[in-house]
Amino acid sequence: MDLDTRADGATLTAALTDIASVSGEEKELADAIERALSPLDHLTIRRLGNTVVARTALGRGERVVLAGHIDTVPHAGNFPSSFDPERTRLSGCGTSDMKSGVAVQLRLAASLTAPSRDVSYVFYECEEIETARNGLFLLSRSSPELLAGDFAVLLEPSGGVVEGGCQGTLRAAITASGARAHTARSWMGRNAIHEAGGILDVLRGWTPREPVVDGLRYREGLNAVAISGGVAGNVVPDSCVVTVNYRFAPDRGSDEAESYLRSLFAPWQVDILDVAPGARPGLAAPVAAAFTAAVGGTPRPKLGWTDVARFAELGIPAVNYGPGISEIAHTAEEYVEVAAIAECEARLRSWLAA
Amino acid sequence: MDLDTRADGATLTAALTDIASVSGEEKELADAIERALSPLDHLTIRRLGNTVVARTALGRGERVVLAGHIDTVPHAGNFPSSFDPERTRLSGCGTSDMKSGVAVQLRLAASLTAPSRDVSYVFYECEEIETARNGLFLLSRSSPELLAGDFAVLLEPSGGVVEGGCQGTLRAAITASGARAHTARSWMGRNAIHEAGGILDVLRGWTPREPVVDGLRYREGLNAVAISGGVAGNVVPDSCVVTVNYRFAPDRGSDEAESYLRSLFAPWQVDILDVAPGARPGLAAPVAAAFTAAVGGTPRPKLGWTDVARFAELGIPAVNYGPGISEIAHTAEEYVEVAAIAECEARLRSWLAA
Repeated sequence: MDLDTRADGATLTAALTDIASVSGEEKELADAIERALSPLDHLTIRRLGNTVVARTALGRGERVVLAGHIDTVPHAGNFPSSFDPERTRLSGCGTSDMKSGVAVQLRLAASLTAPSRDVSYVFYECEEIETARNGLFLLSRSSPELLAGDFAVLLEPSGGVVEGGCQGTLRAAITASGARAHTARSWMGRNAIHEAGGILDVLRGWTPREPVVDGLRYREGLNAVAISGGVAGNVVPDSCVVTVNYRFAPDRGSDEAESYLRSLFAPWQVDILDVAPGARPGLAAPVAAAFTAAVGGTPRPKLGWTDVARFAELGIPAVNYGPGISEIAHTAEEYVEVAAIAECEARLRSWLAA
Repeated sequence: MDLDTRADGATLTAALTDIASVSGEEKELADAIERALSPLDHLTIRRLGNTVVARTALGRGERVVLAGHIDTVPHAGNFPSSFDPERTRLSGCGTSDMKSGVAVQLRLAASLTAPSRDVSYVFYECEEIETARNGLFLLSRSSPELLAGDFAVLLEPSGGVVEGGCQGTLRAAITASGARAHTARSWMGRNAIHEAGGILDVLRGWTPREPVVDGLRYREGLNAVAISGGVAGNVVPDSCVVTVNYRFAPDRGSDEAESYLRSLFAPWQVDILDVAPGARPGLAAPVAAAFTAAVGGTPRPKLGWTDVARFAELGIPAVNYGPGISEIAHTAEEYVEVAAIAECEARLRSWLAA
């Protein structure tokens, strides 16, 4: 099916939504995007797997990146898409996260033949699954020059507000130890699950840091996300593992986050499972300030982890700004406001044309 | 292989040990026991599955039951049995738990042609596994008359000391609830694992009751034996289940134990998983007093749950008294003291002959 980039943003969003592209199955959609943009003289197209990059090369003083993933989570009985009778909302899997953002990218790419800044449009695969398959990650490793730029906008659902930076995330296993015994003579052992109560005490007593970073106030989180222990119904257990997830503000690096967690849980064994650094919002940089002034509204901090951290890793300031609604992403009730699509496109257009 | 009941107790124990009888595979051993006792005129034999009952019928004023299970846990590299060079110890799977007790039963059954009390010798299958297959349980349901008596002795390993009664055991699932949220915005949810810290607080602050029942001091226990919770690495979990095992003294019935647990964990959902009542030691009864006087030593309470509770259920006072060592049962190092076998037999013989 061919995509009509001259249709309005909502119609194009519906067309994009109705080409199924659950992570790992983006070929048909990537083909359609490539077909839609290839004929355009002002764009140079590159494709890696099911990731498509379209770039202008006008010799402008600045280059910005507009990036969005084309995959979705598995459908939840909400495919294909449907408009409500008044055509104010489009419902369906991926409408908010983030086919509406992709529609905005596509319309800007097709119609802005002479933007005031050079633009790299990145349509990438496998954002909803493991990093090793993430198209933006693969691109950052194999062809980082395609991601080069002074500023990046991820069109992730952000409710039409600029969301700056992102918090880091660290998972660790905290292990309480004990000594086995028969429960009929439990005082001969030491119960590791009871001992883990001390770990939960730390979590329950913890107060989140709320640092202001580049003008945005973040809010950290520290949660048990799993707990397990037990040998048999009549045995005092000798081990209990609490898995915690620490969401840390971007004024703190991965190493600092790890040290902090180790000191917080000093009495127990701490094993770091994985860590992904956050990204400072960087909204003070001139190019970012011009962007936020152009799109308006009050920027807010991004608390979740997003691919802006990959741009941060490459030294490129990045923000999230898109028409979708993050709170309903991944639910059966996912939808996008039709008006938000047009507004997002208009604001980005005025920024890129200025 | 035929059993020689005229061999000394240790030799007979070795012979019994070397006929493998892991739970569910007792046929060969039950056959050998039946063959050894069938020719004896003073005994009437009944067999149900791999459970053998041999009874005298001398019209005595009292009837006592000597019971022992013939199965073992799976071997742990400790089969067949072996004596140490000085022949003071016999090592091997089942030597303590409880082929040595079975050897004592067999020698008494074969040689006591005219005991002063009628005796029912019960050799039963599948004690080490689930109740539904337990030979004593099956007998109590299908042929309770074969278990009838004024007093019962289980020849379980008790270190040559009378262990009276047994504690009850109850398992319950205590569930803490919460509300799911993304860990990046955890304050929008309620963490059930953190909430379970309150359950662990109760366990950590709990003081065991130590009631004296019929002259024996018991000691209760309350332990978490399992804990589980968690949805995904980035989700605040909405449920956490702590499985607890309550070992309660025999002055407390099952219903009372259940009410106690429900009140202790009143803030949370409590689901009773299983409960087995304990048994009072009943050592004040004349027949039991005569027994303890005959075998000597200071009786102590049995803290674990044993099949004496099945006799209690039938209204028959019962104790544990056997030559094995319970602390090393089910370990690769299991052994029995040769001298303890002869001593146990001698004391029971003097009681039954008096």
